[in-house]
Amino acid sequence: MTAQVSTIYSQRKLNVGQAGKFLGILLMLLSAFMLPSVGWSLYYEEKFTIIPISLTIILTLAAGTILFVTNKKENEQNISIKEGYLIVCLSWILMAFTGALPFYLSNVIPSFTDAFFESMSGFTTTGASILEDIEAVPKSMLFWRSMTHWLGGMGIIVLTVAILPILGIGGMQLFAAEAPGTTPARLHPQIRSTAKRLWGIYIFLTILQTFLLMLGGMDLFESLNHSFSTMATGGFSTQNDSIAGYSAFIQYVIILFMILAGTSFVLHYFILKGILSKVRQNDEFRFYILVITVFTTVITTGIYIAGNSGLEEAFRHSLFQTVAIATTTGFATTDYLQWNGFLWFLIFILMFTGGCMGSTGGGLKMIRVLVLIKNTRLELKRLLHPMAVVPLKIEKRNIPAAIVSNFLAFFLLYIMVFFFGASVMSMFGLDFETSIGASIASLGNIGPAIGGLGPADNYAFIPAGAKWVLSFLMLLGRLELFTVLLLLSPGFWKK
Amino acid sequence: MTAQVSTIYSQRKLNVGQAGKFLGILLMLLSAFMLPSVGWSLYYEEKFTIIPISLTIILTLAAGTILFVTNKKENEQNISIKEGYLIVCLSWILMAFTGALPFYLSNVIPSFTDAFFESMSGFTTTGASILEDIEAVPKSMLFWRSMTHWLGGMGIIVLTVAILPILGIGGMQLFAAEAPGTTPARLHPQIRSTAKRLWGIYIFLTILQTFLLMLGGMDLFESLNHSFSTMATGGFSTQNDSIAGYSAFIQYVIILFMILAGTSFVLHYFILKGILSKVRQNDEFRFYILVITVFTTVITTGIYIAGNSGLEEAFRHSLFQTVAIATTTGFATTDYLQWNGFLWFLIFILMFTGGCMGSTGGGLKMIRVLVLIKNTRLELKRLLHPMAVVPLKIEKRNIPAAIVSNFLAFFLLYIMVFFFGASVMSMFGLDFETSIGASIASLGNIGPAIGGLGPADNYAFIPAGAKWVLSFLMLLGRLELFTVLLLLSPGFWKK
Repeated sequence: MTAQVSTIYSQRKLNVGQAGKFLGILLMLLSAFMLPSVGWSLYYEEKFTIIPISLTIILTLAAGTILFVTNKKENEQNISIKEGYLIVCLSWILMAFTGALPFYLSNVIPSFTDAFFESMSGFTTTGASILEDIEAVPKSMLFWRSMTHWLGGMGIIVLTVAILPILGIGGMQLFAAEAPGTTPARLHPQIRSTAKRLWGIYIFLTILQTFLLMLGGMDLFESLNHSFSTMATGGFSTQNDSIAGYSAFIQYVIILFMILAGTSFVLHYFILKGILSKVRQNDEFRFYILVITVFTTVITTGIYIAGNSGLEEAFRHSLFQTVAIATTTGFATTDYLQWNGFLWFLIFILMFTGGCMGSTGGGLKMIRVLVLIKNTRLELKRLLHPMAVVPLKIEKRNIPAAIVSNFLAFFLLYIMVFFFGASVMSMFGLDFETSIGASIASLGNIGPAIGGLGPADNYAFIPAGAKWVLSFLMLLGRLELFTVLLLLSPGFWKK
Repeated sequence: MTAQVSTIYSQRKLNVGQAGKFLGILLMLLSAFMLPSVGWSLYYEEKFTIIPISLTIILTLAAGTILFVTNKKENEQNISIKEGYLIVCLSWILMAFTGALPFYLSNVIPSFTDAFFESMSGFTTTGASILEDIEAVPKSMLFWRSMTHWLGGMGIIVLTVAILPILGIGGMQLFAAEAPGTTPARLHPQIRSTAKRLWGIYIFLTILQTFLLMLGGMDLFESLNHSFSTMATGGFSTQNDSIAGYSAFIQYVIILFMILAGTSFVLHYFILKGILSKVRQNDEFRFYILVITVFTTVITTGIYIAGNSGLEEAFRHSLFQTVAIATTTGFATTDYLQWNGFLWFLIFILMFTGGCMGSTGGGLKMIRVLVLIKNTRLELKRLLHPMAVVPLKIEKRNIPAAIVSNFLAFFLLYIMVFFFGASVMSMFGLDFETSIGASIASLGNIGPAIGGLGPADNYAFIPAGAKWVLSFLMLLGRLELFTVLLLLSPGFWKK
């Protein structure tokens, strides 16, 4: 069905006007989402930020309107596969550019490179920051910073659940059939209905978390900021020491919502409809919980034996850091680089996992890791029984060889881009650990890394050129590699 | 054909006696190859080494004879797949154990752990050494040390060209059809004829290199040692500074023979038969040369710009180190860790490549890297043209999906074992770089690594437990992972 649709549309030549119309709407919406920051600006009497934010709103609205009006006649019901790729990539680049303007124009971040890095880190839900003293930044700017996370998360849910499966990116068609309201006849109506349902859940969970954080003693501003960050698996905080200064209650609330944000929103949809059997049957979710359980147990043991903290504290820090890295959120309650080498090596390994597919989490994604491990085990079986047909099963369904091959190609590409990124960082003079850390933390949309980029550090000292490369890695990772790389391939622009 | 054979034999229950007979022959041969060391012992008047070596010869011969005689009635013409795995694994473990005895009994290496590590490093053609002052070691022992490399290399050629393709390990059946004298009806006759042809080439190249090294001024002892090491892509030298102290001529000779040793011996066979078109058509060989060319060019530029050496010297060191790591030999003419971070990061990346399949080189192997890259490029094509059938081609032949899947499973397993090894090293208290380096250098059968294990360092300081783990990684890497892991899987021992 999917393949059929694509061939019909791929006959047509690339229609850039259609992308223009879509991006126009996007910019208009973006300008609306900047309004609350003006509110906070007024509330906290940060007068000097009002003009830069308002100016950005006007510029964005104007640009959006122009783009929309000049391409108004385009029919957005017929978006082709190639146009899909183009729209997705340009959306994130445009959002990152626009999002950087308030920081830059207000002089809160005087370098445009830094402002763009922070904004891209926001919209890709990475959470890597160049801010050296977060608490000195105006509240209205911090709110916009958290908002970039939240909007990025919204975008990702639609992208991974509704758009990428149709485009066939990264094997995501695997659960296209699972998504609510999936009738892949035409792109547009499906995206609209799926998006509405899942955004409802996203907004509901954000409000719920905000409420719980306020119950724990946070004020409305901090609660909203941290809820935005958590639900997007982003990691920007309003505090210099991230979540370390908050109560155990608040830390547990954030752990719970990081786990929820790292779970497929399709699963949340089923839970809310009361179909709890879907949770039990979901192999990816079970694997995700298994990984968190195993790593938390080992790290808790390690920290408790080291003897500097009680069992509850050891457990809480282990669970928090494990979940923060596995879901690619990147919040911290402690600096894992201060643990012994083996324990933070486990955290480093977790950087190569990522959340569930269809969640806001980045990285390789749990389902890919699971399918790859299953395939390797099957390969051993095949060697012992060369004549036996041993299919790969997820949730009792056979997984087509094409999807396994796609996952494997994705994994190779992921490792190659990781090595490429790290080698470029070393070219900019960063040491080995920092190079490796910067690359995986950006590509995996995590934020904190290893070496000079631990949870207690920031990205301010990274050379400007390297910041642009890392921004590119964030984009690559967030859009599942293929989307961006296809645009860079000559074949895309042929005909 | 291959699959047919395997089903016939896999009906039978595992015949351990057959493995016993084979291992008996192996031990008897091994004892014979220790005799030259007695000769060097006499020649250099290292009297205290004569008794330990002779004792090992007698013990090995006795054990071999007992194993052979007690299992004499077994018919080695009918070796089943499972017995193949068993024989291959036990062969290397037994060789490593036996090979450790001369070092241990002579007290040249007082710790058995160290002696076993050195011997396993030898037979797996890794070249990682625990010796702190190589030049203080008796010549007879150094000769035995180089001999373990040479015998390991011989074993590997037969294993990868004749045995593994039939077992279907690591996708090696890919070139089973290419190997000379391949009639996979029964294991034994094929192995015998293939082995004879390829060993002839191996011995011829060893003699040729020895001659050229002597022409460059080395004495017979050193020439033989270095030729043994080179042809096996091992890396043990008789000098503390490896190849650094030798003339440019000798360094170029060693470069040439490292390249030859990293090339498939099946290709050498065709070259010697005058079928030069095979070289031009061989995609793996062309990729191998391309990788060496690209890395050498970049590194030469980097070193030359740094300005501490002339162009020829910069080129020679770059080429030498690139070839030494890419082929997994591990010789050195300079300490690459003294280069700037980007340049040795490139060397680190090369540690993940490896020689050609069917060579004595270890690592992932060039053909796997090539197929994986081609598959990823095809995946991009498939996304743009979902209806098109795009087969993966190597040397104009379509590569079956099963082999691509096998390669990909191998790659994942390789990365997982690498991470596992590195995390265990960090558990033993090694720092991040050293942990990562020790793991990849052992798994890839390279030898020198990064961190505290550069070309100027040795493995003496590694904790004993970690040395056993690294020995296991060498074995895993050398026997293409699956062979060893199958033996550890419960399914292997069923029925």
